[in-house]
Amino acid sequence: MQKPSIPKGTRDFSPEEMAKRNYIFNTIREVFHLYGYQQIETPAMENLSTLMGKYGEEGDKLLFKILNSGDCFSGIADEELPERNPVKFAVKACEKGLRYDLTVPFARYVVQHRNDITFPFKRYQIQPVWRADRPQKGRYREFFQCDADVVGSNSLLNEVELIQLMDEVYHRFGIRVCIKMNNRKILSGIAEILGEADKIVDITVAIDKLDKIGLENVNQELRAKGLTEEAITRLQPIITLAGTNEEKLEVLKQELGASQVACKGIEEMQYILTQTNLLGLRSTLELDLTLARGLNYYTGAIFEVKALDVQIGSITGGGRYDNLTGVFGMDGVSGVGISFGADRIFDVLNQLELYPADSLQTTQLMFVNFGAKEQEYLLPLLAQIRKAGIRTELYPEPAKMKKQMGYADTKKIPFVGLVGETEMNEGKINLKNMLTGEQNPVTLAELIALF
Amino acid sequence: MQKPSIPKGTRDFSPEEMAKRNYIFNTIREVFHLYGYQQIETPAMENLSTLMGKYGEEGDKLLFKILNSGDCFSGIADEELPERNPVKFAVKACEKGLRYDLTVPFARYVVQHRNDITFPFKRYQIQPVWRADRPQKGRYREFFQCDADVVGSNSLLNEVELIQLMDEVYHRFGIRVCIKMNNRKILSGIAEILGEADKIVDITVAIDKLDKIGLENVNQELRAKGLTEEAITRLQPIITLAGTNEEKLEVLKQELGASQVACKGIEEMQYILTQTNLLGLRSTLELDLTLARGLNYYTGAIFEVKALDVQIGSITGGGRYDNLTGVFGMDGVSGVGISFGADRIFDVLNQLELYPADSLQTTQLMFVNFGAKEQEYLLPLLAQIRKAGIRTELYPEPAKMKKQMGYADTKKIPFVGLVGETEMNEGKINLKNMLTGEQNPVTLAELIALF
Repeated sequence: MQKPSIPKGTRDFSPEEMAKRNYIFNTIREVFHLYGYQQIETPAMENLSTLMGKYGEEGDKLLFKILNSGDCFSGIADEELPERNPVKFAVKACEKGLRYDLTVPFARYVVQHRNDITFPFKRYQIQPVWRADRPQKGRYREFFQCDADVVGSNSLLNEVELIQLMDEVYHRFGIRVCIKMNNRKILSGIAEILGEADKIVDITVAIDKLDKIGLENVNQELRAKGLTEEAITRLQPIITLAGTNEEKLEVLKQELGASQVACKGIEEMQYILTQTNLLGLRSTLELDLTLARGLNYYTGAIFEVKALDVQIGSITGGGRYDNLTGVFGMDGVSGVGISFGADRIFDVLNQLELYPADSLQTTQLMFVNFGAKEQEYLLPLLAQIRKAGIRTELYPEPAKMKKQMGYADTKKIPFVGLVGETEMNEGKINLKNMLTGEQNPVTLAELIALF
Repeated sequence: MQKPSIPKGTRDFSPEEMAKRNYIFNTIREVFHLYGYQQIETPAMENLSTLMGKYGEEGDKLLFKILNSGDCFSGIADEELPERNPVKFAVKACEKGLRYDLTVPFARYVVQHRNDITFPFKRYQIQPVWRADRPQKGRYREFFQCDADVVGSNSLLNEVELIQLMDEVYHRFGIRVCIKMNNRKILSGIAEILGEADKIVDITVAIDKLDKIGLENVNQELRAKGLTEEAITRLQPIITLAGTNEEKLEVLKQELGASQVACKGIEEMQYILTQTNLLGLRSTLELDLTLARGLNYYTGAIFEVKALDVQIGSITGGGRYDNLTGVFGMDGVSGVGISFGADRIFDVLNQLELYPADSLQTTQLMFVNFGAKEQEYLLPLLAQIRKAGIRTELYPEPAKMKKQMGYADTKKIPFVGLVGETEMNEGKINLKNMLTGEQNPVTLAELIALF
């Protein structure tokens, strides 16, 4: 018989991996709660009508579709079958699909429950999503997203608090990060000033290469993309933008003063920087004009977090959007949100070995099983130890010592209790520290006090 | 535009429902950890070859199947299409299906990772499962299972500890329960003694009706099921079995002494009862021969938990099995496990109103937003309050007082802080208790001490 396996691009999570993932999610969750975010969950399956057309043509193809139970052929005419058209067939044979991200289900949730929600609505959601992408290193067909959004509030206070929140999360992880920030309105202003509204992406991509290829080559690239010499000249102070955030803002004010939308963006940025300055962030916060994520979607602040000590893509991202729910017929719901990349945070914590020791150990104390008599003696003792909140177990059978100690070892249990004839008579527990090998007889009260 | 909706039989969980569910899962999880159980997770999608044939013919139909991405027709000949046979088609057009329970994926996990697992393996798993059942009250197409199993150990200590564990969980919930216990070996012994091996289910079903229909009618029903008069006569002491667990065991010993398998079952039961007696359970533990869940599957102890103060089916069940992984080609893995019914526990806690108040509140303290100046003053203050671990938020904009207080009300925030001109000058926070309406000026230190 063949060894069973799981679908490609999916993963099993072992106890150790789960302990690490729980550490990550619990840390983030705790900080979400500190800021008043509340959790919701939506079903794994959504109606395909909810999902289709929301992620572009390519996204539609990457949706996992669920074959209708019962007769999947019922909506299909005989003449259609010989066409063997999988796309057309799927639309009729599948009513449901698996969640592709958390944003569309959240938008659907807001519209569906609009009468029960008190706005501003601060929600977070930590759930898996599924994409029929080609699996590759670091890219899975099932992975977790971890999103927090405030909807129904235009206040920049939300941006300020989200920056604080990201700062707090990475402080707790012990990961040194740079929080990069941009504003879609400033990018729009640049394009407006240059008269090149459709070239924002080309411009940000080119500027981003300054360090690597130098100013001459950046200008060359802009020329190749069709920018006029006049535009390129006007763009020089922006390409070479440097210094502190305040210095950068000064240059932008000078260069983009003629654009109303740019001024609005600069003002927003100024406000956010001033407020966060008063809060004493531990991360660096950096104005970065090359940040161009979600340009079709974001309308104000854009965020991205980079780890300083590991080479890896952004580990958190987000921004402000204008119209979350318009696609479901409810206009005027703006909001701002961030998304933590759990898989990448997992990798960073692994690489830097930043998991706190106690996040990885489950059982704190194991008792060796010497036989029926000792077992009977120990059971009520264990009950008292557990009552004190100590995670403890008794090896379930009187196996060979080596086997029992091996079990404690692989399970990373830091203490082992040995209770034989002598200890039972003396009312003691012989406590072995698995790290140092040290062994000491202690009373129950001493043992409980120790943990 | 039509209001969006979700597939029938699925649910959204609101912040309040999530708080309740998290309370349930966290309580169970904490107790699992106290007993040394470690969490694993498996993918939502399994290969259909892993799932098919494991749940009977009916189960195969209830599996949600995922249409192959790319060309779902590629494995299907032109001649097959006009047959329009959905079952045959699904087998070829779908490689993957959604998890139907946690047991088969766990068995698959054990076999796949056998070389990395240290046995005995105490694992728990809390994940959703999906079934294309007809949705009805209390039955969903997506629901959570919450399982704990020890595999690779035959020791009855595991049964004893699982009973202790269930007792602890329901004690923490404040739900009064009766833990019912049976043993498959005793049932087999009864059938052996009567010479009616295939009638165990009929017999247990009939005995179960004793209270409702009386002994005469029970015997009548057994006759109708084809039991001989001799068998029925021999069965009388067992049908009318009553008294304490010890008295019941005495009768069983007398009546079933001739069956070796029954004696083994009685001995197991005796051991488990003796050991748990020493541990002082808070729940009643009751030997109940009518317990016949999972008869195809369980080989030793069988458990079921009934809530005493609510009319509802069993809220936890489980038992010992002999051969978890045989179907995947790995023999000799026996184990014992239990499964908590999260949806029913949710209903019981709701009906008895047993949720602790602090499990339902997320934010502990909200500050009213009076405007830009106050906001700027409050931000660093909030940072300090959060540093003390208090979940606090500042309403994001200076909206009308009524709106802000309404927000605190619906979010069940117990305290509201008011800081205006006077309070800023005096360095105080005007703290309002939302339950009593009481309002008092406090310093930051006093406020932190209060929580």
